[in-house]
Amino acid sequence: MPKGLPASVPDDGLSTRQRRNRPLVMVHTGDGKGKSTAAFGLALRGWNQGWNIGVFQFVKSAKWRIGEQEVLERLGRLHRQTGEGGPVEWHKMGSGWSWSRKQGDVDDHAAAAREGWNEVARRLMAQTHDLVILDEFTYPMKWGWVDVDEVVTALADRPGYQHVVITGRDADPKLIAVADLVTEMTKVKHPMDAGQKGQKGIEW
Amino acid sequence: MPKGLPASVPDDGLSTRQRRNRPLVMVHTGDGKGKSTAAFGLALRGWNQGWNIGVFQFVKSAKWRIGEQEVLERLGRLHRQTGEGGPVEWHKMGSGWSWSRKQGDVDDHAAAAREGWNEVARRLMAQTHDLVILDEFTYPMKWGWVDVDEVVTALADRPGYQHVVITGRDADPKLIAVADLVTEMTKVKHPMDAGQKGQKGIEW
Repeated sequence: MPKGLPASVPDDGLSTRQRRNRPLVMVHTGDGKGKSTAAFGLALRGWNQGWNIGVFQFVKSAKWRIGEQEVLERLGRLHRQTGEGGPVEWHKMGSGWSWSRKQGDVDDHAAAAREGWNEVARRLMAQTHDLVILDEFTYPMKWGWVDVDEVVTALADRPGYQHVVITGRDADPKLIAVADLVTEMTKVKHPMDAGQKGQKGIEW
Repeated sequence: MPKGLPASVPDDGLSTRQRRNRPLVMVHTGDGKGKSTAAFGLALRGWNQGWNIGVFQFVKSAKWRIGEQEVLERLGRLHRQTGEGGPVEWHKMGSGWSWSRKQGDVDDHAAAAREGWNEVARRLMAQTHDLVILDEFTYPMKWGWVDVDEVVTALADRPGYQHVVITGRDADPKLIAVADLVTEMTKVKHPMDAGQKGQKGIEW
């Protein structure tokens, strides 16, 4: 995709630079592949810009996405060792959030999801990260574990220049409304339809 | 997305392990964002598996995707330094393919695209890479610079266990037919529609 020019220039009194640096809420939704993978690809690009990256995985299994986690955490160590790129934090709900005293198997996923969101909301207020990835975060909203209105308000009111990416199927219409950029990943053809099982490097 | 079980188990005489390790042709198409970003996210995961990664960018501008290129090439150097992950090669058509004697501005994009494809075809035969990313490769096919039937045959006949990802809008139906996994990225909402210009870290 070429960089392109905007379809229209808004009469908002902002300079090109200000418009260029406007922080975005991005949503990757739909039933196709690539929602999380594209988010982590964005983290790659952000790391290279020296951004502070925070990933929060709202999924049950701690094993999930281990490939991306290992590489992004490796890049975070590289930053500490050499100053290249930016810092990376990767937190997952799987076996209890890393900041939580409750480790081990999570019994109450709703409470764990709320705890994760509360921490994210605190960090948004504190401007901890430049890019926040909330992986599979549509599900706790869909299941009513996390209040959609509260999320939408926290996103709309976040200070500074924090980009936020939210991934997962069935994004709430209110989330779509507050987002600047929404991409739907649609499955056209998937090998599991033909009996192919998930495989290393492709699925995880 | 949970790892899940296949919708059906095919009667093809293959073991689960053989099916698990079947090499895939993946196509990321559609007018939305994330096609290339998801491909580079996959490269991240492949690198972590120790795969040999080859990226070929069939785009004019050499500046394009510089963020991903820098990070993936950095990971390639990390592999050479420490043995972690796998090797990475990144080639782009921009100012002449790196293996070509013709450097500088490319006048004949059709010839350059064909030269790039010929090299990719040779590498597929030689099983040079474990993951081959052909970024924006749908366009040379669409514009008739590279023969679709030739690409489809080369993909179908490739030996060994080479995964191939092709990105770009307007994927040819023959390419869709030969692919194992096709995802369409659809634009639901894009900030450029509201006059937002492309920005560092997000667009490149």
